[in-house]
Amino acid sequence: MSVIKIGNVEIGGNRVIVAAGPCAIESEEQALTIAKSVQKSGALIFRGGAYKPRTKRSSFQGLGEKGLEILETVKRETGLLVITEVMDPRDVEKIYRFTDFFQIGSRSFQNFPLLIEVGKTNKPIMVKRGMGAKLDIYLSAVEYITAEGNEKVILCERGINALETYSKNTLDVNAIMALKTLSTFPVFGDPSHGTGRNDMVGRAAKACLVVGADGLLIEVHNNPSEALCDGDQALTLRQFDELMTELKELAQTKAIGRSI
Amino acid sequence: MSVIKIGNVEIGGNRVIVAAGPCAIESEEQALTIAKSVQKSGALIFRGGAYKPRTKRSSFQGLGEKGLEILETVKRETGLLVITEVMDPRDVEKIYRFTDFFQIGSRSFQNFPLLIEVGKTNKPIMVKRGMGAKLDIYLSAVEYITAEGNEKVILCERGINALETYSKNTLDVNAIMALKTLSTFPVFGDPSHGTGRNDMVGRAAKACLVVGADGLLIEVHNNPSEALCDGDQALTLRQFDELMTELKELAQTKAIGRSI
Amino acid sequence: MSVIKIGNVEIGGNRVIVAAGPCAIESEEQALTIAKSVQKSGALIFRGGAYKPRTKRSSFQGLGEKGLEILETVKRETGLLVITEVMDPRDVEKIYRFTDFFQIGSRSFQNFPLLIEVGKTNKPIMVKRGMGAKLDIYLSAVEYITAEGNEKVILCERGINALETYSKNTLDVNAIMALKTLSTFPVFGDPSHGTGRNDMVGRAAKACLVVGADGLLIEVHNNPSEALCDGDQALTLRQFDELMTELKELAQTKAIGRSI
Amino acid sequence: MSVIKIGNVEIGGNRVIVAAGPCAIESEEQALTIAKSVQKSGALIFRGGAYKPRTKRSSFQGLGEKGLEILETVKRETGLLVITEVMDPRDVEKIYRFTDFFQIGSRSFQNFPLLIEVGKTNKPIMVKRGMGAKLDIYLSAVEYITAEGNEKVILCERGINALETYSKNTLDVNAIMALKTLSTFPVFGDPSHGTGRNDMVGRAAKACLVVGADGLLIEVHNNPSEALCDGDQALTLRQFDELMTELKELAQTKAIGRSI
Repeated sequence: MSVIKIGNVEIGGNRVIVAAGPCAIESEEQALTIAKSVQKSGALIFRGGAYKPRTKRSSFQGLGEKGLEILETVKRETGLLVITEVMDPRDVEKIYRFTDFFQIGSRSFQNFPLLIEVGKTNKPIMVKRGMGAKLDIYLSAVEYITAEGNEKVILCERGINALETYSKNTLDVNAIMALKTLSTFPVFGDPSHGTGRNDMVGRAAKACLVVGADGLLIEVHNNPSEALCDGDQALTLRQFDELMTELKELAQTKAIGRSI
Repeated sequence: MSVIKIGNVEIGGNRVIVAAGPCAIESEEQALTIAKSVQKSGALIFRGGAYKPRTKRSSFQGLGEKGLEILETVKRETGLLVITEVMDPRDVEKIYRFTDFFQIGSRSFQNFPLLIEVGKTNKPIMVKRGMGAKLDIYLSAVEYITAEGNEKVILCERGINALETYSKNTLDVNAIMALKTLSTFPVFGDPSHGTGRNDMVGRAAKACLVVGADGLLIEVHNNPSEALCDGDQALTLRQFDELMTELKELAQTKAIGRSI
Repeated sequence: MSVIKIGNVEIGGNRVIVAAGPCAIESEEQALTIAKSVQKSGALIFRGGAYKPRTKRSSFQGLGEKGLEILETVKRETGLLVITEVMDPRDVEKIYRFTDFFQIGSRSFQNFPLLIEVGKTNKPIMVKRGMGAKLDIYLSAVEYITAEGNEKVILCERGINALETYSKNTLDVNAIMALKTLSTFPVFGDPSHGTGRNDMVGRAAKACLVVGADGLLIEVHNNPSEALCDGDQALTLRQFDELMTELKELAQTKAIGRSI
Repeated sequence: MSVIKIGNVEIGGNRVIVAAGPCAIESEEQALTIAKSVQKSGALIFRGGAYKPRTKRSSFQGLGEKGLEILETVKRETGLLVITEVMDPRDVEKIYRFTDFFQIGSRSFQNFPLLIEVGKTNKPIMVKRGMGAKLDIYLSAVEYITAEGNEKVILCERGINALETYSKNTLDVNAIMALKTLSTFPVFGDPSHGTGRNDMVGRAAKACLVVGADGLLIEVHNNPSEALCDGDQALTLRQFDELMTELKELAQTKAIGRSI
């Protein structure tokens, strides 16, 4: 099992690491409000998108560089680690200066030039599983990163396309278990994308925890109904706080034997 | 929420009901050994197949009537409730005399003559979701039962066909959550078929529990490596016992708030 | 390659056999009108459902025995061969007296008691592929028939569940090609269920033909907009006639080298 | 219906356009041999990859710039139009100088920075459908191109991930029909990737033709067993020539009414 240490955070160890924050960074005030709140609830990493890969061209595409600067403010003011997505190999150098982790989205999991470019850096990289990716294909893709010498890969199950008529995607908890066996990388679960529904996120987070996820990536918003991106799946600050209490209790059972 | 009472067992109430036993009844000794053990561990229902729907004609097809008689012996000697699968409308009357619950397998979920026939009885019926069934199709199928006047339907998520390269099926925990909202029937999870792998069953069972399943259907065998059916996914008696201890602990957390 | 001879019709030979008719038999007049018309256009087999497996209990379930009698009338008045679906093993004996072929629907492809029961007869059996059935699973299912001594199996690709947002199913032409290699049975294509849309059926039928289907199963109705079942995918009598002209032309090219 | 004219080739008109060539350009000799042969057989466009997106990092990744120079030689010596894939937005300018069409591979169909970059050019762009892309998602992706002002989009169905146990992908002929209705762009079919098997490519090409494809993208190699990429699905020069004869015959039937 590889453990990725960054600051005083260890990913892949006994402690389950929670990364939380909005789908997209919308303003400094929004980001700071959310960051301070999730930090108080126990999140160790702030997530927030500056460059957003959106299905539709007409959807909000993120604040771009302005978003990165806000990320830096969050980092400075809270001391949280930060993670943000990179979609374009030309942005790697710029984003490198602002983030602790690169996030590769599911639509980019086979964007090989991008994987090579982040693979040349020394920062940890969370690669989300493609929505239709079999596990062997997924694991082959991350070899584009490790072949460049960067072994700090974090896997993330975020839901697949299957038979949904109710939720947005199908959270594949089997994949979390399988990836723990098939690879040595830490494995996160993303209950927000895995369900796409506020009323399911909490239970899905618990499912990820009890099957052995090393971390959780959870979307939280101070005002989900006004969110510029994926508001349906965002938890409120209060919901997230309550969820963290529950997750801590579950993690500390003998049955699970971990901390959060 | 409909609650199905049978003897002193309530399905769909606060208590999570565990049904356990072998894929197929192989002998009286095998069945009794397993039944007594899972009962001691906390199972309230004994599961065991007498008529087995097998992908291949050459696979063990179950003991048939002899299996039903063994089921009766188990019931008499242990006091456990029993559940067994019916595949053929011509067998409904016969199986009725031996079982407390009818089980409709995933391959039969749209076997409408069969659904109508069991719907005419007064016994509870667990209908497993088809491996490729969208939830609306699944819920439409059980209307063939309720239209006959039998409302004692129990749903069961047992894994879908998706992108597996490692597990046999993809356990769809989202479906458990969705079915709790879309219907009033109790919802079971089947971590044995949902994963198809001994090393995943326990964690999958926990996942079903924490997302809100009202019951679990778990395959247990006294000698999995010699099982005539699905030995790869059977827990040993000891593994099942340890799992029940863990499930009880998790169920009783404030985060879950149930008993087993 | 097995060839099934019945009357003067050879299935699995050079001639591509077309079975056409309504989803469900609705009345003697409807059935005769359609049968005479499709016969004139070149169909050799009349298809019509008397027992219909419908997703919803509230949908028209077929005329039952009355439908079988109409089928007999069609047979007598036109001389066409007839095919109709059997869903229930208890109906095999009764339907046997009226039909030339048994049809096993996709929802029943793993209804093993039913497969065994028709396998005991000496009539040809068309088994439709399950909507989510991998080819090896499909071919294993038909062994339940051949194990009973009936080798007169006809396979039929009728569309799978995949990524449709427009058509009802996804016609899998690769399956037609693969089944011709993996088995010795004649292989039909069902462009009606394979697309679910009147405007696609003709082109889909051509696709089945050019990839090597030995026969086509096509839904035709004298008044699709009033059909009691699957009117969206039914061709009108005139559309069917025009399609047959086109199919004959294509079949006779050197590129295809068959007749219809 | 939009028609894209380039030189004397019209894409989206009555004539079905065939693009043929190797998966990857391996050498000048290989490329010229294949190009001259497919041209003689009736192909109007030469396809050949210089930058190859390969599942595995250890697979041949293409000749890169050297491949582009070979492409230029092919163009000069044969007069054929050429198409080649672009994977990286940083390569758009370079590849622009060598190619007549940009090809966006299925793994890149939601590579939005790449789509925007090619959208800024004035060259036609073939965007292959993602292997798991529903049609509305696919059509939303190409809006990233048209929003930049480039309307010269060509769609291409190349097989989806479904239930294959025999072929590599599942050719979705319904998608070709649907895309002709849902959009105004020309639609190609790719029988090579759609099947992944030499013995199926020809029949699959015919299926694409008869359902209405405006063009075909076919992999051809002078020595498939030695190909550095996807040799299993490459036609030999002779197979391609024979196929073109058959396709021409089929296209000219009244039933199809097109030329090649």
